[in-house]
Amino acid sequence: MALHKKFMSHAIRLSITKMVEGKGGPFGAVVVKNGKIIAEGFNKVTSTNDPSAHAEVVAIRNACKKLKSFQLTGCEIYTSCEPCPMCLGAIYWARPDRVYFANTREDAANIGFDDQFIYEEINRSIQKRKFKMKQFMRKEAMRAFDLWKKKGDKVGY
Amino acid sequence: MALHKKFMSHAIRLSITKMVEGKGGPFGAVVVKNGKIIAEGFNKVTSTNDPSAHAEVVAIRNACKKLKSFQLTGCEIYTSCEPCPMCLGAIYWARPDRVYFANTREDAANIGFDDQFIYEEINRSIQKRKFKMKQFMRKEAMRAFDLWKKKGDKVGY
Repeated sequence: MALHKKFMSHAIRLSITKMVEGKGGPFGAVVVKNGKIIAEGFNKVTSTNDPSAHAEVVAIRNACKKLKSFQLTGCEIYTSCEPCPMCLGAIYWARPDRVYFANTREDAANIGFDDQFIYEEINRSIQKRKFKMKQFMRKEAMRAFDLWKKKGDKVGY
Repeated sequence: MALHKKFMSHAIRLSITKMVEGKGGPFGAVVVKNGKIIAEGFNKVTSTNDPSAHAEVVAIRNACKKLKSFQLTGCEIYTSCEPCPMCLGAIYWARPDRVYFANTREDAANIGFDDQFIYEEINRSIQKRKFKMKQFMRKEAMRAFDLWKKKGDKVGY
């Protein structure tokens, strides 16, 4: 439990110090492997003009770079807030063993962030979403998928 | 309609050529503003060891860099496949006007990608997910949110 608290405290510390420095929103995260922090991340959306630069995505990118792998097998992520759908998606693609979080999506909504709204939208069918999406040219695009199926030297992920 | 087709054809072309070159999965995307392609993206997960480097996220990052903004107001995204939850989340945070897509999440599942599985998982409560997540230290983490609320010079997003 002491180690758990140490890792989460590190993530929380990032969420405070980097936000105070003006890097972005109040969110921090660390990636742990074999009982050690191997990478950290904090929100830098507004300071780097990258809407995908949430704490978890940044921490995942840094950890993958360090491990020279696109998978985080055997790793755990500690994040100061429940991941938004983008970050949760990134976590599923990176496949760590487990995630620990502190604040919730409702807490994030209460200070003006869209996490809860995006969760609601993603759960709706495309027709019922507020955000407009339209499908066309599937036939042409399927060629890429057919070629992928047949590709002999593909690297799956 | 001719312009729409031109933009989507560009995204589809990326999904084929870059995949054949071994950059990653069969996915491409472009960001359009004022009737012109301002940025493109293709999947480069396996070639750059970045699980977040899906076509849409890469295109969004490139477009934001070009516009020097963390918002894509007035932009449209054309993607060769329905965005996965990570990419859809990134799209909500970037706030373009609209998204056009060609292949579907079911098409992606049929060639071995986890998009549909991740959509199902995200829709479940944390307790019912296959992937394990655990909450603790909310009280300590809330300090960051309290400070954010009071921060006078914050940049919202």
